[in-house]
Amino acid sequence: MGHMTAPYTLILLRHGQSTWNELNLFTGWVDVRLSEKGEAEARRGGELLAEADLHPDILYTSVLSRAIQTADIALDAADRLWIPVKRSWRLNERHYGALQGKDKAQTLAEFGQDQFMLWRRSFDVPPPLLDDDSEYSQVHDPRYAGIDGDIPRTESLKLVIDRLLPYWESDIAADLRAGKTVLVTAHGNSLRGLVKHLDGISDADIAELNIPTGIPLVYRLDEDLTPLGAAEYLDPEAAAAGAAAVAAQGKR
Amino acid sequence: MGHMTAPYTLILLRHGQSTWNELNLFTGWVDVRLSEKGEAEARRGGELLAEADLHPDILYTSVLSRAIQTADIALDAADRLWIPVKRSWRLNERHYGALQGKDKAQTLAEFGQDQFMLWRRSFDVPPPLLDDDSEYSQVHDPRYAGIDGDIPRTESLKLVIDRLLPYWESDIAADLRAGKTVLVTAHGNSLRGLVKHLDGISDADIAELNIPTGIPLVYRLDEDLTPLGAAEYLDPEAAAAGAAAVAAQGKR
Repeated sequence: MGHMTAPYTLILLRHGQSTWNELNLFTGWVDVRLSEKGEAEARRGGELLAEADLHPDILYTSVLSRAIQTADIALDAADRLWIPVKRSWRLNERHYGALQGKDKAQTLAEFGQDQFMLWRRSFDVPPPLLDDDSEYSQVHDPRYAGIDGDIPRTESLKLVIDRLLPYWESDIAADLRAGKTVLVTAHGNSLRGLVKHLDGISDADIAELNIPTGIPLVYRLDEDLTPLGAAEYLDPEAAAAGAAAVAAQGKR
Repeated sequence: MGHMTAPYTLILLRHGQSTWNELNLFTGWVDVRLSEKGEAEARRGGELLAEADLHPDILYTSVLSRAIQTADIALDAADRLWIPVKRSWRLNERHYGALQGKDKAQTLAEFGQDQFMLWRRSFDVPPPLLDDDSEYSQVHDPRYAGIDGDIPRTESLKLVIDRLLPYWESDIAADLRAGKTVLVTAHGNSLRGLVKHLDGISDADIAELNIPTGIPLVYRLDEDLTPLGAAEYLDPEAAAAGAAAVAAQGKR
């Protein structure tokens, strides 16, 4: 059961490259799979956990396949396939609204740099609503049949945090306080939301934060779940290169 | 959430071939992986579920990697990776005691057909105890740190059923009664124990029952969780051939 008292250990892992990352499309809640490169990133993530002697006691994932695949591959590589798993839509990627399925470079060319960056990085401006008739809508997806309230048609980062934090408090934080080492395998924006909360980053400054794919980010937390120093990537050099690559997206 | 009233649907899936099945070794609680053939069987199992329009709402697995891998691969093929998962050591394979790690054909030659079949198929005669110092012991495996009482050193089928049924009643049966379509991905002997319970098979007759790998076995159950007719394999022809192959094990 890992440590029974603080410091508590929280590990965040962004899923590896998906087939749509590879194609440079806005994905959001569209349920695409990992690319071969993404599978290799997930394996490397699991190896990094094992090399660092980090042993998750419980796994949290979104309900999107690319995060689940990443967790399954990483835990297989770390010989921890057997740990308990909880999944929640509250860990999903940001819903990208009407941008879902669109090419990032084409969207940039069509709407210009200002509007593009507003949609990608503003804190509280969501993209236009996705039509329920769109092939990229999730309104008829059975995995969301049980969610409280309406299924999102678009989200800003603020809205992601609004649906994420209740789950953080009710489930993830509770497991941390019980002394469990927790692995959260999720997405660029749900993890940015969590990092913003943990590190107390302002609404303005969070725009500059990019999380690389496939590299575990390790927090040590005190009794109040306040970080004890800066969180650390298990491969800092690769993490810096990965974050720069995320920042450059759409600029091809 | 599937059907909200009876008949309830329960799907049993025995894991695909493992690397030790391939080598003809007694496995039990030793945590070996699927072979390539086993991965292909798991994929086929998931395709059979999708073709039969069966949509599990929740997955149960043992804490052994070969069952977890089978479930992950099958649910990926059936596009249901996102369903909730519960794992329990109570769904594990029978602990094979001192036979774990031994060659089946060699054990047959060494101890003779009668003793061999007694260990493999008697209802309540467990193999000799596995020594805690054995490389095939699980007494120091962290996945069993939290189990109630002592970790097994050997088990008969009767002992498997004794540790399985409390979990069946507390968790699996409860989910069935809530109207969920339940998938249980487990092992030859834990599934034989469950089938014995569901179908009311006698202690003597269960010796003759063999469950093939990778082929979903579908039960329709009434309000009392009594089977409505015989359970059906989704590929009856392959299931018959698979069961015959299991029965022939050790006789190479």
